[in-house]
Amino acid sequence: MKSVGVAILGLGVVGSGTYKILRDHREFYRQTQGVDITVESVLEINKQKALALGIEESKISDNIAEVISNPNVDIVIEVIGGVEPAKSFVLAALHSGKSVVTSNKELFCKYWHELEKAAKRTNAGLYFEASCVGGVPIIRTLIDGMQANVIENLTGIINGTTNYILTRMSREGLGYETVLKDAQKLGYAEANPSADVEGYDAAYKLSILSSLAFHTKVPLDKVYREGITGIQAQDITYGDELGYVLKLLAIGKNGEKGIEVRVHPAFIRKDHPLASVNDSFNAVYLKGDSVGDIMLYGRGAGDMPTGSAIVSDVIYAATHNDVKYATFKNGAAAEAGVKFVTDFKSRYYIRFTAKDRAGVLAKVAGIFAKYNISIVDLIQKGEDCENIPIILITHETNEYSVRRALEKIGALEDVVSVDSMIRVEV
Amino acid sequence: MKSVGVAILGLGVVGSGTYKILRDHREFYRQTQGVDITVESVLEINKQKALALGIEESKISDNIAEVISNPNVDIVIEVIGGVEPAKSFVLAALHSGKSVVTSNKELFCKYWHELEKAAKRTNAGLYFEASCVGGVPIIRTLIDGMQANVIENLTGIINGTTNYILTRMSREGLGYETVLKDAQKLGYAEANPSADVEGYDAAYKLSILSSLAFHTKVPLDKVYREGITGIQAQDITYGDELGYVLKLLAIGKNGEKGIEVRVHPAFIRKDHPLASVNDSFNAVYLKGDSVGDIMLYGRGAGDMPTGSAIVSDVIYAATHNDVKYATFKNGAAAEAGVKFVTDFKSRYYIRFTAKDRAGVLAKVAGIFAKYNISIVDLIQKGEDCENIPIILITHETNEYSVRRALEKIGALEDVVSVDSMIRVEV
Repeated sequence: MKSVGVAILGLGVVGSGTYKILRDHREFYRQTQGVDITVESVLEINKQKALALGIEESKISDNIAEVISNPNVDIVIEVIGGVEPAKSFVLAALHSGKSVVTSNKELFCKYWHELEKAAKRTNAGLYFEASCVGGVPIIRTLIDGMQANVIENLTGIINGTTNYILTRMSREGLGYETVLKDAQKLGYAEANPSADVEGYDAAYKLSILSSLAFHTKVPLDKVYREGITGIQAQDITYGDELGYVLKLLAIGKNGEKGIEVRVHPAFIRKDHPLASVNDSFNAVYLKGDSVGDIMLYGRGAGDMPTGSAIVSDVIYAATHNDVKYATFKNGAAAEAGVKFVTDFKSRYYIRFTAKDRAGVLAKVAGIFAKYNISIVDLIQKGEDCENIPIILITHETNEYSVRRALEKIGALEDVVSVDSMIRVEV
Repeated sequence: MKSVGVAILGLGVVGSGTYKILRDHREFYRQTQGVDITVESVLEINKQKALALGIEESKISDNIAEVISNPNVDIVIEVIGGVEPAKSFVLAALHSGKSVVTSNKELFCKYWHELEKAAKRTNAGLYFEASCVGGVPIIRTLIDGMQANVIENLTGIINGTTNYILTRMSREGLGYETVLKDAQKLGYAEANPSADVEGYDAAYKLSILSSLAFHTKVPLDKVYREGITGIQAQDITYGDELGYVLKLLAIGKNGEKGIEVRVHPAFIRKDHPLASVNDSFNAVYLKGDSVGDIMLYGRGAGDMPTGSAIVSDVIYAATHNDVKYATFKNGAAAEAGVKFVTDFKSRYYIRFTAKDRAGVLAKVAGIFAKYNISIVDLIQKGEDCENIPIILITHETNEYSVRRALEKIGALEDVVSVDSMIRVEV
């Protein structure tokens, strides 16, 4: 039977989960995969933490060189996160010909090309299923399951923290700050939540997933990004009345005009399969030219789901010798010929507050008409007040036009404020 | 660049779709997969059909020996369906060392072991992603994406015809026969629909999927099977009132008591992700011990989705040399030590008609109590009639008890008929 020794760099949440899975399933993998996988070394400064997991003292190290030079280690699992020291550690492992399995989306999204080059130099493998959407095997699916398709678009709910917050805001009618505080207490959000709530985490993942889906490097700086911090509870309520739920979407499209990649809050129809992806669940909805619509749904984070993806990669690395990279032609930057769409099209939910005077709607309608924006739906609320909220949904139009129209509307004498502009997708 | 020649056996719906995908994506696969895939031969009696697809006359044959002995053919795609002549053709291909890609669930479910033995003898590959759930890469996911997990259960909507029929019955309140006729007219159901509506097709797939998920042969004869032909529109309506939708489910469980595999109509909660799998869409919901809940959703049939799965297998076969089988330890029959659960547990929706007399409910409740069945929900309809329908939902109980209780209830003087018993899952 083939023996494979692994090292785990870092026993944080994911590292500990990975260790437990490997420890508890050793016999199962021997039986079902024909591979004997053992943890030969862990890099962890907190020795007590490692001992508490039942790891032998001789296998615990605080010295990366020692871990990597261990001749029993074939595969190095990097679960430290962030760029440094993870990057140096991964490169050191690859330089010594050890294959690397990583869950590090930021590192992978920013330095994929450099890591892949280093891996190829020593014929080491490089696997990153755990970097995107936790336990959902989306990367394996893109590489080995949907590779017969030209992928036209992908739409994902790929950040658990923001989906948890938006789900609770929707269900309970609470404000963003209230739910955020609760999410922090419950461990669903970090003390500094900006990587999640500002959309960075989703943008890292979208850069990786759309690079794979569209077979060309989609650099992070091409991803339009907008978080959920400005979302107001009343817009979720009005959206609900109109048949929509609000999600932080990651959208990638590959069309005639070029590649379009964006992360932002968006309303989606209640009957769309993505609408029932709630709490900390994630999902990716894909359209392939042959297969049509596909959706993968599951846990996007957590010790065991992400550990599952890591161990799946370890087993894959141990059983497949000829597929070591999910490569695309070009390198670190966007390919010369590839165009990126920035003035994208969407439908729009718009809320503004107007004085309750005759003629204001006519003026607003006139401005929309001038920019060729047609309106699908309009609600006027609270007719007895001096200032009334007006909510409308547009037909598909380009974002530039909407922004210009809203500037003009905001400048109208009878318009108190333009309050919200939320894209309406799927 | 690696060149791979394929033969397609049969230009039916799936064969034609596969041909079109290969023809239209040749350059795309050269660029993205580094493989040049060409169709070198097709087996098709109807030469005009082949010519109409643009296939060169020299590549069209009605002689299987000629197709298989063609030295340019590396991979044989079998899309004939049914056991014979597909089985002989597949065995002949494997005997000559050609790898086989098949969409044939009946053949695969019944003769998997024999085909795998033949393949191993000549080191040919054997791939069957297209046999289950069309374009959804469920088999690749079980083998290469969730292999780190002990899979505890799978619940699937894996037959498009029945899902189409049930979706329309639910939406439009129509009866089974009416929708079936319409489905036949629209091409969603065969002239002889029994393979679909009696649950055979789902049972074939469940046998294959649960064998893979549970790493042991789950023979077809272990699958409990019940179709949708007896479903009455009013039960769908009552279920809706109680918060459920009706689906034909394929359920596989692997627990302490053994393996449980069954195909039957079942009510599921409206807020479960499977509930929004409508029309001819399919989905498989899986629970792994590490990853938790996962769902894969997509088109379960059709020329292009199934063709997508076939071509994905062709590319996989061309790019992976070391993973050729999705093998499990035992052979054709169930392994000696494996137990199969037959008296399974579920919750139950029960409808019966009773005379509108005092005391009938007390008698019924007494019988349920005797069999230790507790009732969660009860609706009594149409209080002004002589005979009234009574609908109830039970807590989880074993099927044997429910069947016995219903016999006793049916024998009560005040009970006119026991009309429906539908399991309630997830």
